[in-house]
Amino acid sequence: MDIHPIGYLHSDFESRFGAPRQPGIVPEARGELHLHPPYNNPEALSGLEGCTHIWLIVGFHATPDRPWRPTVRPPRLGGNQRCGVFATRSPFRPNHLGLSLVRQIGLLAPPACGLALRGVDLIDGTPVYDIKPYLPDIEAPTDAQPPDLMRTALPGLRVEWRASALAELATAPAELKALITATIAADPRPAYRRGQDAAHFGMRLAGYEVAWSVADETAWVESVSPAPGKDSKGR
Amino acid sequence: MDIHPIGYLHSDFESRFGAPRQPGIVPEARGELHLHPPYNNPEALSGLEGCTHIWLIVGFHATPDRPWRPTVRPPRLGGNQRCGVFATRSPFRPNHLGLSLVRQIGLLAPPACGLALRGVDLIDGTPVYDIKPYLPDIEAPTDAQPPDLMRTALPGLRVEWRASALAELATAPAELKALITATIAADPRPAYRRGQDAAHFGMRLAGYEVAWSVADETAWVESVSPAPGKDSKGR
Repeated sequence: MDIHPIGYLHSDFESRFGAPRQPGIVPEARGELHLHPPYNNPEALSGLEGCTHIWLIVGFHATPDRPWRPTVRPPRLGGNQRCGVFATRSPFRPNHLGLSLVRQIGLLAPPACGLALRGVDLIDGTPVYDIKPYLPDIEAPTDAQPPDLMRTALPGLRVEWRASALAELATAPAELKALITATIAADPRPAYRRGQDAAHFGMRLAGYEVAWSVADETAWVESVSPAPGKDSKGR
Repeated sequence: MDIHPIGYLHSDFESRFGAPRQPGIVPEARGELHLHPPYNNPEALSGLEGCTHIWLIVGFHATPDRPWRPTVRPPRLGGNQRCGVFATRSPFRPNHLGLSLVRQIGLLAPPACGLALRGVDLIDGTPVYDIKPYLPDIEAPTDAQPPDLMRTALPGLRVEWRASALAELATAPAELKALITATIAADPRPAYRRGQDAAHFGMRLAGYEVAWSVADETAWVESVSPAPGKDSKGR
Protein backbone atom coordinates (compact mmCIF):
# COMPACT_ATOMS: atom_id res chain seq x y z
CA MET A 1 0.00 0.00 0.00
CA ASP A 2 1.36 3.38 -0.94
CA ILE A 3 0.88 6.06 1.73
CA HIS A 4 1.56 9.78 1.46
CA PRO A 5 2.35 12.29 4.20
CA ILE A 6 -0.57 14.52 5.10
CA GLY A 7 1.99 16.94 6.51
CA TYR A 8 5.24 17.32 8.39
CA LEU A 9 6.16 17.86 12.00
CA HIS A 10 8.47 20.70 13.04
CA SER A 11 10.02 20.15 16.44
CA ASP A 12 12.71 21.34 18.82
CA PHE A 13 14.72 18.16 18.14
CA GLU A 14 16.94 18.59 15.13
CA SER A 15 18.60 15.18 15.34
CA ARG A 16 17.86 11.78 16.79
CA PHE A 17 20.38 12.35 19.59
CA GLY A 18 18.58 14.26 22.32
CA ALA A 19 15.05 13.42 21.19
CA PRO A 20 13.10 11.73 24.03
CA ARG A 21 12.42 8.03 23.53
CA GLN A 22 8.71 8.41 24.31
CA PRO A 23 6.18 11.23 24.02
CA GLY A 24 5.19 13.24 27.09
CA ILE A 25 8.54 12.74 28.87
CA VAL A 26 9.56 16.30 28.02
CA PRO A 27 6.29 18.27 28.29
CA GLU A 28 8.14 21.45 27.24
CA ALA A 29 9.07 19.97 23.87
CA ARG A 30 7.22 22.01 21.25
CA GLY A 31 6.01 20.79 17.93
CA GLU A 32 3.99 22.12 15.03
CA LEU A 33 2.20 19.84 12.63
CA HIS A 34 1.79 21.57 9.27
CA LEU A 35 -0.73 19.98 6.91
CA HIS A 36 0.30 20.03 3.26
CA PRO A 37 -1.91 20.18 0.14
CA PRO A 38 -4.47 18.75 -0.49
CA TYR A 39 -4.98 18.15 3.25
CA ASN A 40 -4.37 21.75 4.43
CA ASN A 41 -8.06 22.48 4.79
CA PRO A 42 -9.04 23.82 8.24
CA GLU A 43 -12.34 21.89 8.00
CA ALA A 44 -10.38 18.65 8.37
CA LEU A 45 -9.45 19.72 11.93
CA SER A 46 -12.88 21.04 12.94
CA GLY A 47 -14.29 19.16 15.89
CA LEU A 48 -10.94 18.84 17.69
CA GLU A 49 -12.14 21.48 20.17
CA GLY A 50 -11.68 20.21 23.72
CA CYS A 51 -9.46 17.36 22.58
CA THR A 52 -6.31 17.45 24.72
CA HIS A 53 -4.33 14.61 23.13
CA ILE A 54 -3.96 13.23 19.64
CA TRP A 55 -2.27 10.24 18.07
CA LEU A 56 0.18 10.80 15.27
CA ILE A 57 1.02 7.95 12.91
CA VAL A 58 4.40 8.91 11.50
CA GLY A 59 7.33 7.61 9.51
CA PHE A 60 10.72 7.02 11.14
CA HIS A 61 12.38 8.81 8.25
CA ALA A 62 15.78 9.32 9.89
CA THR A 63 16.29 5.71 10.95
CA PRO A 64 18.88 3.99 8.76
CA ASP A 65 17.32 1.42 6.48
CA ARG A 66 18.59 -2.09 7.10
CA PRO A 67 17.38 -5.60 6.35
CA TRP A 68 14.55 -7.01 8.50
CA ARG A 69 15.68 -8.42 11.82
CA PRO A 70 13.17 -9.99 14.23
CA THR A 71 14.96 -8.72 17.35
CA VAL A 72 16.41 -5.43 18.60
CA ARG A 73 18.43 -4.25 21.63
CA PRO A 74 16.23 -1.67 23.35
CA PRO A 75 18.05 1.10 25.26
CA ARG A 76 15.75 0.49 28.22
CA LEU A 77 17.36 -2.95 28.64
CA GLY A 78 20.82 -1.40 28.68
CA GLY A 79 21.43 -2.15 25.02
CA ASN A 80 22.78 -5.63 25.81
CA GLN A 81 19.65 -7.74 25.78
CA ARG A 82 17.75 -8.65 22.60
CA CYS A 83 13.99 -8.91 22.41
CA GLY A 84 11.36 -9.12 19.70
CA VAL A 85 10.85 -5.92 17.75
CA PHE A 86 7.06 -6.16 18.25
CA ALA A 87 7.56 -6.07 22.05
CA THR A 88 9.33 -2.70 21.72
CA ARG A 89 8.84 0.76 20.31
CA SER A 90 12.18 0.58 18.47
CA PRO A 91 12.29 2.59 15.23
CA PHE A 92 14.01 -0.37 13.51
CA ARG A 93 10.84 -2.15 12.44
CA PRO A 94 8.93 -3.24 9.36
CA ASN A 95 7.27 -0.35 7.51
CA HIS A 96 9.10 2.24 9.69
CA LEU A 97 5.80 3.34 11.22
CA GLY A 98 5.80 5.26 14.50
CA LEU A 99 2.94 6.04 16.87
CA SER A 100 3.07 8.99 19.23
CA LEU A 101 0.55 10.48 21.68
CA VAL A 102 1.05 14.23 21.99
CA ARG A 103 -0.73 17.15 23.62
CA GLN A 104 -2.71 19.37 21.27
CA ILE A 105 -2.78 23.02 22.31
CA GLY A 106 -4.50 24.73 19.38
CA LEU A 107 -4.63 25.56 15.73
CA LEU A 108 -1.72 27.21 13.94
CA ALA A 109 -2.35 30.78 12.84
CA PRO A 110 -3.42 31.06 9.17
CA PRO A 111 -2.19 30.89 6.46
CA ALA A 112 -0.57 27.81 8.07
CA CYS A 113 -2.97 24.92 8.58
CA GLY A 114 -2.20 22.54 11.39
CA LEU A 115 -1.81 22.07 15.12
CA ALA A 116 0.48 23.34 17.86
CA LEU A 117 1.73 20.48 20.02
CA ARG A 118 3.62 19.79 23.25
CA GLY A 119 5.36 16.72 24.66
CA VAL A 120 6.71 15.79 21.26
CA ASP A 121 9.30 13.00 20.90
CA LEU A 122 9.72 13.29 17.14
CA ILE A 123 12.51 14.95 15.26
CA ASP A 124 12.14 17.95 13.03
CA GLY A 125 10.89 17.05 9.56
CA THR A 126 9.08 13.83 10.52
CA PRO A 127 6.43 12.90 7.92
CA VAL A 128 2.94 12.46 9.40
CA TYR A 129 0.52 9.97 7.82
CA ASP A 130 -2.52 10.37 10.06
CA ILE A 131 -3.98 12.20 13.06
CA LYS A 132 -6.55 10.55 15.31
CA PRO A 133 -8.21 11.88 18.46
CA TYR A 134 -7.25 10.10 21.68
CA LEU A 135 -10.34 8.48 23.23
CA PRO A 136 -9.63 8.01 26.97
CA ASP A 137 -12.72 5.82 27.50
CA ILE A 138 -11.45 3.29 24.99
CA GLU A 139 -7.71 3.68 25.03
CA ALA A 140 -6.84 3.75 28.73
CA PRO A 141 -7.85 0.29 29.99
CA THR A 142 -7.44 0.21 33.77
CA ASP A 143 -6.01 -3.31 33.88
CA ALA A 144 -3.32 -2.84 31.24
CA GLN A 145 0.23 -4.01 31.92
CA PRO A 146 3.29 -3.39 29.75
CA PRO A 147 5.64 -6.19 28.68
CA ASP A 148 7.59 -7.59 31.67
CA LEU A 149 10.88 -6.46 30.12
CA MET A 150 9.66 -2.86 29.79
CA ARG A 151 8.90 -2.47 33.51
CA THR A 152 12.47 -1.52 34.37
CA ALA A 153 12.44 2.25 34.09
CA LEU A 154 15.66 4.04 33.28
CA PRO A 155 16.80 6.03 36.31
CA GLY A 156 17.34 9.29 34.38
CA LEU A 157 19.93 11.95 35.18
CA ARG A 158 20.14 14.75 37.72
CA VAL A 159 20.83 17.96 35.81
CA GLU A 160 23.00 20.84 37.07
CA TRP A 161 23.98 24.03 35.27
CA ARG A 162 27.43 25.64 35.21
CA ALA A 163 27.23 29.34 36.09
CA SER A 164 28.70 30.23 32.69
CA ALA A 165 25.98 28.24 30.88
CA LEU A 166 23.25 29.94 32.91
CA ALA A 167 24.70 33.32 31.98
CA GLU A 168 24.43 32.38 28.29
CA LEU A 169 20.65 32.03 28.69
CA ALA A 170 20.23 35.76 29.23
CA THR A 171 19.18 36.43 25.64
CA ALA A 172 17.44 33.10 25.01
CA PRO A 173 13.67 32.45 25.15
CA ALA A 174 12.43 31.96 28.72
CA GLU A 175 11.41 28.33 28.15
CA LEU A 176 14.80 27.17 26.84
CA LYS A 177 16.22 26.31 30.27
CA ALA A 178 13.31 24.00 31.15
CA LEU A 179 13.47 22.32 27.72
CA ILE A 180 17.21 21.63 27.99
CA THR A 181 16.93 20.40 31.59
CA ALA A 182 14.05 18.01 30.86
CA THR A 183 15.67 16.70 27.68
CA ILE A 184 18.92 15.81 29.46
CA ALA A 185 17.08 14.47 32.56
CA ALA A 186 15.45 11.85 30.30
CA ASP A 187 19.00 10.54 29.62
CA PRO A 188 19.34 10.50 25.85
CA ARG A 189 22.79 8.82 26.05
CA PRO A 190 23.15 5.71 23.93
CA ALA A 191 23.28 2.62 26.14
CA TYR A 192 26.92 1.88 25.31
CA ARG A 193 28.03 5.25 26.66
CA ARG A 194 26.13 5.10 29.94
CA GLY A 195 29.00 3.49 31.80
CA GLN A 196 31.52 6.12 30.71
CA ASP A 197 32.21 8.71 33.34
CA ALA A 198 33.25 12.26 32.46
CA ALA A 199 31.73 11.76 28.98
CA HIS A 200 30.96 14.84 26.88
CA PHE A 201 27.93 15.30 24.66
CA GLY A 202 26.67 17.94 22.27
CA MET A 203 23.21 18.32 20.82
CA ARG A 204 21.22 20.84 18.86
CA LEU A 205 17.94 21.79 20.44
CA ALA A 206 15.45 24.47 19.40
CA GLY A 207 18.12 26.26 17.40
CA TYR A 208 20.81 26.14 20.11
CA GLU A 209 24.00 24.14 20.49
CA VAL A 210 24.04 22.58 23.95
CA ALA A 211 27.20 21.03 25.42
CA TRP A 212 26.91 18.82 28.48
CA SER A 213 28.88 16.22 30.36
CA VAL A 214 28.13 13.43 32.80
CA ALA A 215 30.04 12.51 35.92
CA ASP A 216 28.74 10.40 38.84
CA GLU A 217 25.26 10.15 37.23
CA THR A 218 24.94 13.95 37.30
CA ALA A 219 24.71 15.83 34.03
CA TRP A 220 26.32 19.27 33.85
CA VAL A 221 25.16 21.75 31.25
CA GLU A 222 28.42 23.30 30.09
CA SER A 223 27.36 25.80 27.44
CA VAL A 224 24.41 27.00 25.38
CA SER A 225 24.88 29.05 22.22
CA PRO A 226 22.73 29.93 19.20
CA ALA A 227 23.41 27.39 16.45
CA PRO A 228 24.70 28.84 13.19
CA GLY A 229 22.61 28.64 10.06
CA LYS A 230 19.17 28.56 11.62
CA ASP A 231 17.05 31.08 13.42
CA SER A 232 17.17 30.53 17.16
CA LYS A 233 13.56 29.41 17.43
CA GLY A 234 14.28 26.25 15.47
CA ARG A 235 11.46 26.99 13.02
CA MET B 1 6.10 5.36 1.21
CA ASP B 2 5.25 1.82 0.29
CA ILE B 3 4.17 -0.34 3.23
CA HIS B 4 3.55 -4.08 3.29
CA PRO B 5 1.34 -6.12 5.62
CA ILE B 6 3.29 -8.04 8.26
CA GLY B 7 0.26 -10.31 8.53
CA TYR B 8 -3.51 -10.51 8.52
CA LEU B 9 -6.17 -10.47 11.20
CA HIS B 10 -8.81 -13.20 11.39
CA SER B 11 -11.84 -12.16 13.38
CA ASP B 12 -15.43 -13.05 14.21
CA PHE B 13 -16.65 -10.14 12.07
CA GLU B 14 -17.05 -11.16 8.48
CA SER B 15 -18.42 -7.86 7.23
CA ARG B 16 -18.37 -4.22 8.25
CA PHE B 17 -21.98 -4.41 9.41
CA GLY B 18 -21.90 -5.75 12.95
CA ALA B 19 -18.25 -4.96 13.65
CA PRO B 20 -17.97 -2.73 16.75
CA ARG B 21 -16.96 0.86 16.06
CA GLN B 22 -14.20 0.82 18.69
CA PRO B 23 -11.99 -1.90 20.21
CA GLY B 24 -12.80 -3.32 23.64
CA ILE B 25 -16.55 -2.67 23.34
CA VAL B 26 -17.18 -6.37 22.70
CA PRO B 27 -14.61 -8.11 24.95
CA GLU B 28 -15.81 -11.51 23.66
CA ALA B 29 -14.81 -10.67 20.08
CA ARG B 30 -11.97 -13.03 19.16
CA GLY B 31 -9.19 -12.36 16.77
CA GLU B 32 -6.04 -14.05 15.59
CA LEU B 33 -3.17 -12.14 14.09
CA HIS B 34 -1.20 -14.38 11.76
CA LEU B 35 2.25 -13.10 10.79
CA HIS B 36 3.23 -13.81 7.20
CA PRO B 37 6.71 -14.39 5.70
CA PRO B 38 9.30 -12.98 6.24
CA TYR B 39 7.85 -11.73 9.54
CA ASN B 40 6.55 -15.08 10.82
CA ASN B 41 9.51 -15.59 13.15
CA PRO B 42 8.54 -16.26 16.79
CA GLU B 43 11.57 -14.25 17.94
CA ALA B 44 9.86 -11.09 16.71
CA LEU B 45 7.20 -11.58 19.42
CA SER B 46 9.56 -12.54 22.25
CA GLY B 47 9.37 -10.12 25.14
CA LEU B 48 5.58 -9.65 24.88
CA GLU B 49 5.22 -11.78 28.04
CA GLY B 50 3.08 -9.96 30.59
CA CYS B 51 1.86 -7.44 28.01
CA THR B 52 -1.92 -7.31 28.23
CA HIS B 53 -2.67 -4.89 25.40
CA ILE B 54 -1.15 -4.15 22.02
CA TRP B 55 -1.66 -1.54 19.33
CA LEU B 56 -2.36 -2.68 15.81
CA ILE B 57 -1.75 -0.33 12.92
CA VAL B 58 -3.98 -1.67 10.16
CA GLY B 59 -5.41 -0.87 6.77
CA PHE B 60 -9.13 -0.17 6.31
CA HIS B 61 -9.16 -2.49 3.32
CA ALA B 62 -12.96 -2.89 3.07
CA THR B 63 -13.75 0.83 3.09
CA PRO B 64 -14.78 2.04 -0.36
CA ASP B 65 -12.15 4.25 -1.93
CA ARG B 66 -13.40 7.74 -2.64
CA PRO B 67 -11.80 11.13 -3.27
CA TRP B 68 -10.41 13.04 -0.27
CA ARG B 69 -13.02 14.93 1.72
CA PRO B 70 -12.03 16.99 4.77
CA THR B 71 -15.21 16.18 6.72
CA VAL B 72 -17.24 13.09 7.60
CA ARG B 73 -20.57 12.35 9.33
CA PRO B 74 -19.67 10.21 12.35
CA PRO B 75 -22.34 7.72 13.51
CA ARG B 76 -21.84 8.95 17.08
CA LEU B 77 -23.28 12.31 16.01
CA GLY B 78 -26.33 10.63 14.53
CA GLY B 79 -24.97 10.73 11.00
CA ASN B 80 -26.37 14.22 10.39
CA GLN B 81 -23.56 16.43 11.61
CA ARG B 82 -20.28 16.89 9.73
CA CYS B 83 -16.94 17.30 11.45
CA GLY B 84 -13.29 17.16 10.46
CA VAL B 85 -12.01 13.70 9.63
CA PHE B 86 -9.00 14.20 11.93
CA ALA B 87 -11.37 14.73 14.89
CA THR B 88 -12.87 11.28 14.29
CA ARG B 89 -11.89 7.64 13.94
CA SER B 90 -13.81 7.35 10.66
CA PRO B 91 -12.36 4.81 8.20
CA PHE B 92 -12.83 7.36 5.38
CA ARG B 93 -9.46 9.08 5.79
CA PRO B 94 -6.22 9.73 3.98
CA ASN B 95 -3.98 6.65 3.76
CA HIS B 96 -6.78 4.37 5.09
CA LEU B 97 -4.78 3.70 8.27
CA GLY B 98 -6.54 2.39 11.37
CA LEU B 99 -5.33 2.15 14.96
CA SER B 100 -6.78 -0.37 17.37
CA LEU B 101 -5.94 -1.30 20.98
CA VAL B 102 -6.69 -4.97 21.62
CA ARG B 103 -6.13 -7.48 24.39
CA GLN B 104 -3.33 -9.97 23.80
CA ILE B 105 -3.96 -13.38 25.34
CA GLY B 106 -1.09 -15.48 24.03
CA LEU B 107 0.85 -16.92 21.14
CA LEU B 108 -0.81 -18.99 18.44
CA ALA B 109 0.11 -22.66 18.44
CA PRO B 110 2.89 -23.50 15.93
CA PRO B 111 3.22 -23.85 13.00
CA ALA B 112 1.16 -20.63 13.00
CA CYS B 113 3.09 -17.59 14.16
CA GLY B 114 1.11 -14.78 15.73
CA LEU B 115 -1.10 -13.71 18.60
CA ALA B 116 -4.54 -14.60 19.96
CA LEU B 117 -6.57 -11.48 20.67
CA ARG B 118 -9.80 -10.33 22.32
CA GLY B 119 -11.87 -7.16 22.10
CA VAL B 120 -11.26 -6.89 18.38
CA ASP B 121 -13.16 -4.34 16.29
CA LEU B 122 -11.62 -5.28 12.95
CA ILE B 123 -13.14 -7.35 10.23
CA ASP B 124 -11.82 -10.69 9.03
CA GLY B 125 -8.94 -10.32 6.60
CA THR B 126 -7.73 -6.90 7.78
CA PRO B 127 -4.09 -6.30 6.78
CA VAL B 128 -1.82 -5.44 9.73
CA TYR B 129 1.17 -3.15 9.21
CA ASP B 130 2.63 -3.01 12.72
CA ILE B 131 2.27 -4.24 16.31
CA LYS B 132 3.41 -2.11 19.23
CA PRO B 133 3.17 -2.82 22.96
CA TYR B 134 0.80 -0.56 24.89
CA LEU B 135 2.74 1.43 27.50
CA PRO B 136 0.25 2.51 30.21
CA ASP B 137 2.73 4.91 31.86
CA ILE B 138 3.05 6.91 28.66
CA GLU B 139 -0.22 6.34 26.86
CA ALA B 140 -2.85 6.87 29.55
CA PRO B 141 -2.47 10.55 30.53
CA THR B 142 -4.74 11.25 33.50
CA ASP B 143 -5.86 14.67 32.26
CA ALA B 144 -6.85 13.63 28.74
CA GLN B 145 -10.18 14.72 27.29
CA PRO B 146 -11.76 13.58 24.00
CA PRO B 147 -13.09 16.07 21.44
CA ASP B 148 -16.22 17.86 22.74
CA LEU B 149 -18.29 16.32 19.94
CA MET B 150 -17.25 12.79 20.92
CA ARG B 151 -18.50 13.08 24.51
CA THR B 152 -22.04 12.11 23.58
CA ALA B 153 -22.05 8.35 24.01
CA LEU B 154 -24.48 6.30 21.98
CA PRO B 155 -27.11 4.80 24.27
CA GLY B 156 -26.77 1.26 22.90
CA LEU B 157 -29.53 -1.34 22.71
CA ARG B 158 -31.16 -3.66 25.22
CA VAL B 159 -30.93 -7.20 23.79
CA GLU B 160 -33.55 -9.91 24.23
CA TRP B 161 -33.65 -13.42 22.74
CA ARG B 162 -36.65 -15.18 21.19
CA ALA B 163 -37.10 -18.65 22.70
CA SER B 164 -36.67 -20.18 19.23
CA ALA B 165 -33.32 -18.39 18.75
CA LEU B 166 -32.09 -19.58 22.16
CA ALA B 167 -33.02 -23.14 21.20
CA GLU B 168 -30.85 -22.83 18.08
CA LEU B 169 -27.79 -22.23 20.28
CA ALA B 170 -27.88 -25.79 21.61
CA THR B 171 -25.17 -27.04 19.22
CA ALA B 172 -23.22 -23.77 19.00
CA PRO B 173 -20.03 -22.94 20.94
CA ALA B 174 -20.77 -21.80 24.50
CA GLU B 175 -19.41 -18.28 23.94
CA LEU B 176 -21.60 -17.52 20.91
CA LYS B 177 -24.52 -16.14 22.91
CA ALA B 178 -22.37 -13.59 24.75
CA LEU B 179 -20.68 -12.54 21.50
CA ILE B 180 -23.98 -11.97 19.70
CA THR B 181 -25.52 -10.15 22.65
CA ALA B 182 -22.57 -7.78 23.11
CA THR B 183 -22.27 -7.12 19.38
CA ILE B 184 -25.91 -6.08 19.07
CA ALA B 185 -25.87 -4.15 22.38
CA ALA B 186 -23.18 -1.88 20.87
CA ASP B 187 -25.81 -0.87 18.28
CA PRO B 188 -24.20 -1.50 14.91
CA ARG B 189 -27.16 0.04 13.04
CA PRO B 190 -26.24 2.72 10.54
CA ALA B 191 -27.33 6.14 11.81
CA TYR B 192 -29.99 6.57 9.11
CA ARG B 193 -31.78 3.42 10.25
CA ARG B 194 -31.81 4.22 13.98
CA GLY B 195 -35.15 5.99 13.80
CA GLN B 196 -36.89 3.10 12.04
CA ASP B 197 -38.94 0.96 14.35
CA ALA B 198 -39.58 -2.72 13.64
CA ALA B 199 -36.48 -2.76 11.42
CA HIS B 200 -34.89 -6.11 10.56
CA PHE B 201 -31.17 -6.81 10.33
CA GLY B 202 -28.98 -9.74 9.40
CA MET B 203 -25.30 -10.22 10.01
CA ARG B 204 -22.71 -12.94 9.80
CA LEU B 205 -20.74 -13.46 12.99
CA ALA B 206 -18.21 -16.18 13.84
CA GLY B 207 -19.57 -18.40 11.10
CA TYR B 208 -23.25 -17.92 11.98
CA GLU B 209 -26.07 -16.02 10.33
CA VAL B 210 -27.82 -13.92 12.95
CA ALA B 211 -31.19 -12.27 12.31
CA TRP B 212 -32.42 -9.55 14.67
CA SER B 213 -34.95 -6.79 14.80
CA VAL B 214 -35.41 -3.58 16.75
CA ALA B 215 -38.62 -2.24 18.25
CA ASP B 216 -38.88 0.40 20.99
CA GLU B 217 -35.08 0.53 21.40
CA THR B 218 -35.00 -3.16 22.26
CA ALA B 219 -33.24 -5.58 19.95
CA TRP B 220 -34.70 -9.07 19.58
CA VAL B 221 -32.47 -11.90 18.39
CA GLU B 222 -34.76 -13.78 16.00
CA SER B 223 -32.61 -16.65 14.73
CA VAL B 224 -29.09 -18.04 14.72
CA SER B 225 -27.96 -20.61 12.18
CA PRO B 226 -24.62 -21.90 10.87
CA ALA B 227 -23.66 -19.90 7.80
CA PRO B 228 -23.14 -21.93 4.63
CA GLY B 229 -19.73 -22.19 3.04
CA LYS B 230 -17.57 -21.66 6.09
CA ASP B 231 -16.77 -23.75 9.13
CA SER B 232 -18.76 -22.58 12.10
CA LYS B 233 -15.77 -21.29 14.03
CA GLY B 234 -15.24 -18.54 11.47
CA ARG B 235 -11.61 -19.56 10.97
